[in-house]
Amino acid sequence: MAGLMRADRVRALAELAVTAGANVQPGQIVGLTTHPGKEDLARAVAGAAYRAGALWVDVFTFDDLVKRERLLHAADDTIDFVPASFRDRLRWLSDEHGARISLSGPHAPSAFDDVDPSRAGRDLLPWLPESNAVINARTTNWTMVPGPTAAWAELVYPGLTAAEALERLWAAVERMCRLDEPDPNAAWTARTAQLLDVARRLTARRFDAVRLHGPGSDLTVGLLEGSRWHAARFETIDGVPHHPNLPTEEVFTTPDPERADGVVTMTKPRELYGAIVEGIRIEFAGGRAVRIDATRGAETLRAAAAKDEGASRLGELALVDGDGRIGPLDTVFYDTLIDENAASHIALGAGLAMGVDGPEAEAAMNASAIHVDLMVGSLELDVDGVTRAGEHVPVLRHGRWQL
Amino acid sequence: MAGLMRADRVRALAELAVTAGANVQPGQIVGLTTHPGKEDLARAVAGAAYRAGALWVDVFTFDDLVKRERLLHAADDTIDFVPASFRDRLRWLSDEHGARISLSGPHAPSAFDDVDPSRAGRDLLPWLPESNAVINARTTNWTMVPGPTAAWAELVYPGLTAAEALERLWAAVERMCRLDEPDPNAAWTARTAQLLDVARRLTARRFDAVRLHGPGSDLTVGLLEGSRWHAARFETIDGVPHHPNLPTEEVFTTPDPERADGVVTMTKPRELYGAIVEGIRIEFAGGRAVRIDATRGAETLRAAAAKDEGASRLGELALVDGDGRIGPLDTVFYDTLIDENAASHIALGAGLAMGVDGPEAEAAMNASAIHVDLMVGSLELDVDGVTRAGEHVPVLRHGRWQL
Repeated sequence: MAGLMRADRVRALAELAVTAGANVQPGQIVGLTTHPGKEDLARAVAGAAYRAGALWVDVFTFDDLVKRERLLHAADDTIDFVPASFRDRLRWLSDEHGARISLSGPHAPSAFDDVDPSRAGRDLLPWLPESNAVINARTTNWTMVPGPTAAWAELVYPGLTAAEALERLWAAVERMCRLDEPDPNAAWTARTAQLLDVARRLTARRFDAVRLHGPGSDLTVGLLEGSRWHAARFETIDGVPHHPNLPTEEVFTTPDPERADGVVTMTKPRELYGAIVEGIRIEFAGGRAVRIDATRGAETLRAAAAKDEGASRLGELALVDGDGRIGPLDTVFYDTLIDENAASHIALGAGLAMGVDGPEAEAAMNASAIHVDLMVGSLELDVDGVTRAGEHVPVLRHGRWQL
Repeated sequence: MAGLMRADRVRALAELAVTAGANVQPGQIVGLTTHPGKEDLARAVAGAAYRAGALWVDVFTFDDLVKRERLLHAADDTIDFVPASFRDRLRWLSDEHGARISLSGPHAPSAFDDVDPSRAGRDLLPWLPESNAVINARTTNWTMVPGPTAAWAELVYPGLTAAEALERLWAAVERMCRLDEPDPNAAWTARTAQLLDVARRLTARRFDAVRLHGPGSDLTVGLLEGSRWHAARFETIDGVPHHPNLPTEEVFTTPDPERADGVVTMTKPRELYGAIVEGIRIEFAGGRAVRIDATRGAETLRAAAAKDEGASRLGELALVDGDGRIGPLDTVFYDTLIDENAASHIALGAGLAMGVDGPEAEAAMNASAIHVDLMVGSLELDVDGVTRAGEHVPVLRHGRWQL
């Protein structure tokens, strides 16, 4: 199938973000987070949001090359400062029950290459200490969609010219966001129904733990009694359904932060606070990451995992089947939104309230200022559910659900 | 003289903005307002500010092409909405006694060409109702410097290629900002001393009014008893000196909003809320603009002047001599920061507290949500001071001070 023209893709992705994604309601304030180089898409999102009846589209542009200046030149005792401007804006969007749309993807991939990694690991902005709390409060209908830039495309497709690379990235985004379907929103409704059905079946099994085993990995992650599986579509406290991630292919839960044992080897590199981290191997004991190795960026990941008590414990376990559209592209996109949906993954840091049922489980889930997804899955990774009786039940084999 | 290389100009202008301009103090928060296309300069300003000891550089990027989407598509009853995010950030910068740096100049000159001008005239953002109050409270050390973009350069030099035009605009900015001097800060210290000396002499005369007369203009502007003349360098309530505008060539005062009579013809077009307004002729009677004509953009200017009671009255009278560096360039830059310093000007809207002495005069000066500078000067415009006895004293003739 011939892909869409660039301008049509921008428009189609903007419409998807505003409709299936955040599901912007008439009269809402819309917070839009973007980066330099994504202006066309940001403007199209703003236009789509206003046509949907938005009261105001509040654009927040974060520039990693300004952050680089901070990390290079600011006094060391200022690096942990979190500005009231960022916090007040997020609180305002939450208090107003606004919509939130973020355009993901690195816009300046080498911004932090020559920056002290321990400083880079301390400055988590634009991520805020209260970001997770706002998600868990379900006050905002939010979404993240990819925002392609030439610099990002050249990172993903290093052999191509900037123009060719950008065309190829847009084609991949078109494919994974199902913009090549006659009705992308209907395509997402169908895929979301599949994922929610798997989540229901997983929740019904009430596994005590999940074991991930394959090349370089044998990790058993304990679940809480109140752990439940969820996927794709969330709902705000006002009853507004939305897709927090587009694309989304994962079924996830919030595990027991006290129980994770074994070793896990990442199958994809990732971008973390602007640095690339790859070749990661983590040993867990009693829920904690007790050893972190990486062929690149180890210091950045270690600094993140040392951010607070919960930063070295798990806040998410997510499974991805072989029917998604990202895995078959067999590409590292260096964008967690996309890469985490290519393969099963775990996350260090904060648990998601959507992944537990009841106040007891919510109190037991991991708390942290960070939430760092790490891709561990592949078609070779077997996933078993472990029952309370100790029985191992196949869950995923070669990307196919076994339940 | 051979000009600086582009990267050196960016760095030199950033240093000027942080030192002579805002005079950023160690430990300060720095609000930086920029636009898409000015990333290089914004990053250089951030770097210079952090090297000067800034605690945090808070970048606010305003995109006229997002505003265009609002003006085209938002519901009509939302156009007057002013977001709490913008207001809270300005209040925060004021409360924290922060520094503020803005990069001026249009980044998307045709953004509003096909927008309903009455809607454009109602949406004054990013200008805020409290912007003037923050200036008058003198809590922040602030500056505006030009931020050249290719789109702006093509507007100024329509016959050139984008690259040639941008080079020429940067060369003009280098010249007008005195970056071609061995020590730009020392050059500004000298020019500021000249301007402050003229201001002192003008204030000492205690004129009752000023008459501007020349081709198409004969306007007499009444002064308050407490009107005083000021220039170039301000000081915060904490005693931090700063240059609010760089370049600056004007000597200004705050007039009596009840007394302006006659007619004035603008000598330069200007950009107003994204639209170009040109060929302007305004009749004043009893202090009020009673008739506004323009060959282009009249509706936008009329909408601005109808914004509130003070919007049709004068808040500023500024005189510019022939020794400045902008007038000789004989160029319309479509940026008020630059163009107002090419020639004498008046401003509709809010008075500046720096232009009056004492609480009585401050209470009498004009109040408005707008402040719109309009260029009326040229070498052909004669300026006289009018004494209380009715004597006319020459002040400016052919760009030379007569005092």
